[in-house]
Amino acid sequence: MSSEYGKTLKISIFGESHGKAIGVNIDGLPAGESIDLCALYDFMSRRAPGKSALTTHRKEKDQPIFLSGITNGKTNGFPLCAIIENSDTRSGDYSGFENTPRPSHADYTAYLRYGGHADMHGSGHFSGRLTAPLCIAGGIAKQILENRNIFVGAHLYSIGEVCDAPFPLHPTQTLFNDIVKRELAVIDESVIDSMKNAVADAAENLDSVGGIVECAVIGFPEGIGTPMFDGIENRLAHALFGIPAVKGVEFGAGFSAAKSLGSLNNDPFTVQDDRIVTTTNNSGGIVGGISNGMPIIMRTAFKPTPSIMQQQQTVNISALENTTLTIKGRHDPCVVLRAVPVVEAVAATVMLDLLIGG
Amino acid sequence: MSSEYGKTLKISIFGESHGKAIGVNIDGLPAGESIDLCALYDFMSRRAPGKSALTTHRKEKDQPIFLSGITNGKTNGFPLCAIIENSDTRSGDYSGFENTPRPSHADYTAYLRYGGHADMHGSGHFSGRLTAPLCIAGGIAKQILENRNIFVGAHLYSIGEVCDAPFPLHPTQTLFNDIVKRELAVIDESVIDSMKNAVADAAENLDSVGGIVECAVIGFPEGIGTPMFDGIENRLAHALFGIPAVKGVEFGAGFSAAKSLGSLNNDPFTVQDDRIVTTTNNSGGIVGGISNGMPIIMRTAFKPTPSIMQQQQTVNISALENTTLTIKGRHDPCVVLRAVPVVEAVAATVMLDLLIGG
Amino acid sequence: MSSEYGKTLKISIFGESHGKAIGVNIDGLPAGESIDLCALYDFMSRRAPGKSALTTHRKEKDQPIFLSGITNGKTNGFPLCAIIENSDTRSGDYSGFENTPRPSHADYTAYLRYGGHADMHGSGHFSGRLTAPLCIAGGIAKQILENRNIFVGAHLYSIGEVCDAPFPLHPTQTLFNDIVKRELAVIDESVIDSMKNAVADAAENLDSVGGIVECAVIGFPEGIGTPMFDGIENRLAHALFGIPAVKGVEFGAGFSAAKSLGSLNNDPFTVQDDRIVTTTNNSGGIVGGISNGMPIIMRTAFKPTPSIMQQQQTVNISALENTTLTIKGRHDPCVVLRAVPVVEAVAATVMLDLLIGG
Amino acid sequence: MSSEYGKTLKISIFGESHGKAIGVNIDGLPAGESIDLCALYDFMSRRAPGKSALTTHRKEKDQPIFLSGITNGKTNGFPLCAIIENSDTRSGDYSGFENTPRPSHADYTAYLRYGGHADMHGSGHFSGRLTAPLCIAGGIAKQILENRNIFVGAHLYSIGEVCDAPFPLHPTQTLFNDIVKRELAVIDESVIDSMKNAVADAAENLDSVGGIVECAVIGFPEGIGTPMFDGIENRLAHALFGIPAVKGVEFGAGFSAAKSLGSLNNDPFTVQDDRIVTTTNNSGGIVGGISNGMPIIMRTAFKPTPSIMQQQQTVNISALENTTLTIKGRHDPCVVLRAVPVVEAVAATVMLDLLIGG
Repeated sequence: MSSEYGKTLKISIFGESHGKAIGVNIDGLPAGESIDLCALYDFMSRRAPGKSALTTHRKEKDQPIFLSGITNGKTNGFPLCAIIENSDTRSGDYSGFENTPRPSHADYTAYLRYGGHADMHGSGHFSGRLTAPLCIAGGIAKQILENRNIFVGAHLYSIGEVCDAPFPLHPTQTLFNDIVKRELAVIDESVIDSMKNAVADAAENLDSVGGIVECAVIGFPEGIGTPMFDGIENRLAHALFGIPAVKGVEFGAGFSAAKSLGSLNNDPFTVQDDRIVTTTNNSGGIVGGISNGMPIIMRTAFKPTPSIMQQQQTVNISALENTTLTIKGRHDPCVVLRAVPVVEAVAATVMLDLLIGG
Repeated sequence: MSSEYGKTLKISIFGESHGKAIGVNIDGLPAGESIDLCALYDFMSRRAPGKSALTTHRKEKDQPIFLSGITNGKTNGFPLCAIIENSDTRSGDYSGFENTPRPSHADYTAYLRYGGHADMHGSGHFSGRLTAPLCIAGGIAKQILENRNIFVGAHLYSIGEVCDAPFPLHPTQTLFNDIVKRELAVIDESVIDSMKNAVADAAENLDSVGGIVECAVIGFPEGIGTPMFDGIENRLAHALFGIPAVKGVEFGAGFSAAKSLGSLNNDPFTVQDDRIVTTTNNSGGIVGGISNGMPIIMRTAFKPTPSIMQQQQTVNISALENTTLTIKGRHDPCVVLRAVPVVEAVAATVMLDLLIGG
Repeated sequence: MSSEYGKTLKISIFGESHGKAIGVNIDGLPAGESIDLCALYDFMSRRAPGKSALTTHRKEKDQPIFLSGITNGKTNGFPLCAIIENSDTRSGDYSGFENTPRPSHADYTAYLRYGGHADMHGSGHFSGRLTAPLCIAGGIAKQILENRNIFVGAHLYSIGEVCDAPFPLHPTQTLFNDIVKRELAVIDESVIDSMKNAVADAAENLDSVGGIVECAVIGFPEGIGTPMFDGIENRLAHALFGIPAVKGVEFGAGFSAAKSLGSLNNDPFTVQDDRIVTTTNNSGGIVGGISNGMPIIMRTAFKPTPSIMQQQQTVNISALENTTLTIKGRHDPCVVLRAVPVVEAVAATVMLDLLIGG
Repeated sequence: MSSEYGKTLKISIFGESHGKAIGVNIDGLPAGESIDLCALYDFMSRRAPGKSALTTHRKEKDQPIFLSGITNGKTNGFPLCAIIENSDTRSGDYSGFENTPRPSHADYTAYLRYGGHADMHGSGHFSGRLTAPLCIAGGIAKQILENRNIFVGAHLYSIGEVCDAPFPLHPTQTLFNDIVKRELAVIDESVIDSMKNAVADAAENLDSVGGIVECAVIGFPEGIGTPMFDGIENRLAHALFGIPAVKGVEFGAGFSAAKSLGSLNNDPFTVQDDRIVTTTNNSGGIVGGISNGMPIIMRTAFKPTPSIMQQQQTVNISALENTTLTIKGRHDPCVVLRAVPVVEAVAATVMLDLLIGG
């Protein structure tokens, strides 16, 4: 399979950027769960393009249409399919980048894989637009988790060289709510201007900039997961690498643990309010693939979007010779800003899958 | 499932550290592949404990016994099961860490998950010893890949703060062979002493130290993989997080791409010897989940092993009170040294699975 | 998962009988396959309700809308999602059989499984209407197989006690075409009147009647499949039992082989036109899970539809007492007539999955 | 995958008839389940060769060796691997049927599939001997089900033309126990002589005879399963077709339902002892893929074993010409006698998988 993940809860994404519609089919949702559509739209609006300064929180064109799986506002136990119609569908033949592929875009690998049959208009099925149906699935999963007092939140850990504060040892629902309300999804408001400048600089230079999203899951029950190949880390990483532009995933101390010593990296146990907790969380809430009751912490690295408007070196595939390329149009200089809810969405679906499927 | 990965090629690991045997069942190998057992043992000896200065390169006790799947030195198309008998099996009741769990070890999460039924003697199924059967599978996969001119190699990218040189743009089979011959698996021999010192320092301080393994796959055909959730990165990451102590995985420029600009991170295309290549490889050979013909590059971060002999803070689970713990015995101060072939093994099985299953 | 099958080719069915739309998502189709939409509609019309005497061969309301996966009349390699909008959607609360379940219908088990949350209007996701999207997938799979000279055909092996002739040793594409053209999908035209009488008798008695569909796949390559749990029979049976009302599946001689002797049931080999064939086909083209080059033959038993208009004995669930029930409305007295293309559809998708995935 | 089935509970079978060992790896067993090894051996002895008149009920050579997954007599939550060593291993090159394949045996399809690399000595991985490790898994699953008051039993529904009584509406554990104690596994003792004669006649004529095994599961909770492709019937059928020689599977009234009328085949509901039950069980306890609380009833058709000692018509593959073949040695004239516990084993593993995985 290619565009599906999950075990008990199966999430299948379909659609191309300029096709008739994009959407998601979710198989395995528990029955009888109330879905608050307003809350879902609010969640989805966090990744919508054009959002700034908390203005219009609903882009009508990205409004999901539910084809199945919901009856009278509740999941009915059957597969839930929701679609978003594309207003801007393809017209006539595609005359894009198929012969002069954009560097670090999927143009060339799609050509290698699908031999010219892939509909790459607007990047087709590789488009970041496909994260909208992911957010439908994730928004629903988040609500079902919240009904069980499990909360998923994320923030902009860094944009280029500008870093936010990391999550504290015990992130709270309040913190998650505060992050969402801010102009940028950060913990430390004082970094917002620097981050905006980093993005503005990239835009001004016809360039783009990458970033890291840190995500936390709180309230997740302890003792869930398994060792080796089906643990929490395996499943989260497998799904997170499905988000376009992701090039790295780490849990807890992650790569910095590799520079550390056991005496510093081990999380000492202590009894607190009659519960066993750890006083640090370098494990990111997961040991041996299994949750230990501490917050689950992961960081996902996004490369700078390859869509930059500077002239770039490429090749003419049919002539097999070097050439240059300048991408036209307006492009998002920093997709990471909109990736925060996408990471939450993927994390929420995986955690719900683990919760209901064991 | 818990201890299985792969799609067309299924790898199932079984066994506990002090049980009767550990082993692997491999379902889906192509038939008629010659397996060179000497080469396999040589590969396995690279992860064997006690190896130093290239002395005894074969530990008899880790010799695999093939129960099925091989006839007259060739795979026969049926499931291949191989086991390694444990000389040091459990005796009587286990009186270990079940009530005073070792920090950042799986003792506590195993207790939460299996309610005291897990056999945690020697860490049971969580033990690093389970990487031995992984290396059986990986050693076989490497040979089958090599017959197709695909080579997998890895090196110690870093031990603690000491860094090796990274892989060059085009790693070669010769480089892979050179790395294996060295006292430590590095590209730049001049760092060996510093790395050995870092390990010796940790040992002296009854401590442990982490590290990063960088792995490359060369010769892998272009155009293999799929977008979204079943791409090369998804599948490699899913499997790599199954190696004990792994806390981070990245491809190409990985986390450093998140600090970069599109103009620097994009890989320009060029024609070289009538082939289309890129002049940099920040993508790590994978764009949109699909191979682009460049070397596939990944880095895997290992935390310092939690088995340190300093006194540590833990809890008495049944009494629900704080206590301390000092782990006895000899422990490897740096498991990363032995993890190099394990990373190669996992990468090789995943790449073979992708190759035969599409 | 519940409403998905397939391994390399994943078929996911969604929708409820009276929801907004029903549909199918097909993940894993090869790219570049031309899809003849007219031929697809013709195929789908074979299962359409109301069809008789080869009249209108296209019910507009069951016209599929393709949301993704097809560009310029060819598969593009990405997931293909197609939907059929329901003209007759639910209105207000459902006041049906939830408290007085219809015998042998899914009303009661849906109540047990989904606790009243299932949308059972028109039988919801259990409805025979869900076989329409199955036919979209199957019609596409049939075309892709036909491009490779593999043909799938089926006929009414029996309706009640009335039997058609079985498939000959070597069914042909011509035979498949002839069957489709007949008023009922039979090999021996002389049984049509008896079959029609059996159905008319059931209708007159406010009753229903069952039947058996026999399906053949010709031209399928030899040597495909695997022993034990992933062979051709396992996968066909797994999928065929997903068609509503199926209670039995057999291959080759099937249940009658159980009454036979080895000397009669074994298929002798012979050389014919420089090919190795068998002179009988009690194996149904499959031995040890693997195709042997002979036609693949399966029979699928359908129970009489439980929707009969006679008074029936049931229970009042909430009062926990016996009661009676009379189902109103017009109901198909023999769903098997329309099941012939559905069996072909399921068989075609499974065979295509085997062909492309090994 | 080929030799694995199950979703939450994964059963992988490995080994060849004359290889070093055959075995099973079971991934996903719940932890803390006591396994009574004597009861397991007793169960396994029911399929052991040479058993007659309830004499020696334990063949030492088929004694399983547990490599992992059990600690102090209880499952430990980790993969359970058990093997049976082959006393009669292959010696030198195989000089069997590879060039003159036995009719209706897997010799020819194995040749097509594995190109001469399959180890077909004693039928290799296609051998009925592989049902021994299946019985290890099934015996363990049966015990875990029994701890939850779920019982699985089977009997010889027919041998050739000789039929046993079918299961009554409500089979009991007592009935299951009685069946096991009889010389043949039948409900109606009066048919034993006829069955024995049918087998003896086949043996005398150097022939073989087929048969049907009927299996019942009682006490299984209601409301388990799902509609369409992951229901109880789909999963049982998928696994049952993995037993060598199976050519048909049916549930409840099965194929005979296809000859019936809705008024006769529908199962009327009634209230009995404050529970809702049906007064007939033509559904076999499964409606819409979901259990309804009635006994789950399935019948599995076995073809007569193709190993007969009469002269048979075959081909010389390399010369591509017709020839004859006479199989030497002693062969079981009726494998169905030994298949009864195998059907129970497969049914038990599938039901346990459904129970723990939902």
